[in-house]
Amino acid sequence: MEQLFVIKIGGNVIDDEKNLSAFLQKFAAINGNKILIHGGGKIATKIGEQLGIQSQYINGRRITDAATIDVVTMVYGGLVNKKIVAQLQAIGCNAIGLTGADANCIPATKRPVTKEGIDFGFAGDVDTKNIAAAYLQLFLNNGLTPVLAPLTHDGMGQMLNTNADTIASSIAVALSAAFDVRLIYCFEKKGVLEQVEDENSVITLINKTIYQRLKNDHKLFDGILPKIDNAFAAIDSGVKEVLIGHAGDLLQNVTKTTTGTLIQ
Amino acid sequence: MEQLFVIKIGGNVIDDEKNLSAFLQKFAAINGNKILIHGGGKIATKIGEQLGIQSQYINGRRITDAATIDVVTMVYGGLVNKKIVAQLQAIGCNAIGLTGADANCIPATKRPVTKEGIDFGFAGDVDTKNIAAAYLQLFLNNGLTPVLAPLTHDGMGQMLNTNADTIASSIAVALSAAFDVRLIYCFEKKGVLEQVEDENSVITLINKTIYQRLKNDHKLFDGILPKIDNAFAAIDSGVKEVLIGHAGDLLQNVTKTTTGTLIQ
Repeated sequence: MEQLFVIKIGGNVIDDEKNLSAFLQKFAAINGNKILIHGGGKIATKIGEQLGIQSQYINGRRITDAATIDVVTMVYGGLVNKKIVAQLQAIGCNAIGLTGADANCIPATKRPVTKEGIDFGFAGDVDTKNIAAAYLQLFLNNGLTPVLAPLTHDGMGQMLNTNADTIASSIAVALSAAFDVRLIYCFEKKGVLEQVEDENSVITLINKTIYQRLKNDHKLFDGILPKIDNAFAAIDSGVKEVLIGHAGDLLQNVTKTTTGTLIQ
Repeated sequence: MEQLFVIKIGGNVIDDEKNLSAFLQKFAAINGNKILIHGGGKIATKIGEQLGIQSQYINGRRITDAATIDVVTMVYGGLVNKKIVAQLQAIGCNAIGLTGADANCIPATKRPVTKEGIDFGFAGDVDTKNIAAAYLQLFLNNGLTPVLAPLTHDGMGQMLNTNADTIASSIAVALSAAFDVRLIYCFEKKGVLEQVEDENSVITLINKTIYQRLKNDHKLFDGILPKIDNAFAAIDSGVKEVLIGHAGDLLQNVTKTTTGTLIQ
């Protein structure tokens, strides 16, 4: 099977024009099938504030009310997405910007109110089996590089806000029947660290045996556990491998040896 | 050749939720190949004002400065485009929202400063021969309905603002080699009127002979002349026919008899 890179970048790359431009150069240079998923960055919060919209949070999670879904649709689906697409076009990568509504790529369900009565508003939960893998494949097979904003839709006319990590893993799983998928999460650290304070203590390979040993030894930073759990969930659903690391390093030589942590 | 409908709607349809929803129902019901081009509507101006951005005009034409191109990219390319796409998805039309940067659909050139020294800013002029007709055809042939925002790009990383009427006619011309194209301009009147004050005096057919006679008799409202001239320019470049009329009426029976003015 052909290889496919599904790469997610977050705010730390998007918010800094220099970082973003350097990242996009490396991304465009990847030879072969690739899909980029971007988060929103701080610009949505900034524009929301300028428009007088107060962000609401419950347990540290943002509530997507009607005003907020309009702002993130504008900012993620318009400003950020098209800025990335236009820059990729300028360096020879034929990008096509998409939300989950476009070509019905990522249908979702509005998150139900929790037992505790918490309503997250216009937040979309994705069922991987509903993803329009055939259209993404059509685009890839015709030389296009999908660039996905973290937005889905409910199939009833409403856009929904969906976490970019979730979009990335769902897309990776949905396309794993057709491609050898390497899912790559770019974040602010160089990889999974054996000593949290030591940026050079990157664990280069984690499999389930190693993971169990690391957990038994209480070596891992708590915040990294959900990321690794998600990585194994993706692998258990067909993704070939997951790579976690710093955007600046990760794509240096993405097809061969890599820096960062490889999860298999 | 198969038929293709290229349909442009403006602010009068977009700004009113009921009008838009009624229009999209009719649009979705068109059996066969179709492309929708939308303008921006008043919402861009409103959001621009809320963000403290003053619209600048020269000779009644808006200047697209750096702050304004960001606002229109957000609003046209994000909010308006995705609202339309999500609503079409809800009624069984598999829409894909695009700007001119996506799949490099509509490359453009930043408008040069005029001899009089007027700089229109980030305004894009389109050369029809550069349009990626093959990708639009690929989408159509695979059951997708392109929904185009009035945005292009300069191929060097910069989004540009382009008039929606221009996008519509350029797309219509570019696809006329592959389809029998009917280009449809929806506007606030029922069609080209023989008596400006009488909404029922729609001229149902205009060809070059009739147009010459109408101009000789000074029957036509000045504002309509550029629209008709553009229509004939499109026809001279390969478009089969152009229809001008009211969004509410035009699509009633778009494939057979129609209300509005047919230009051939």
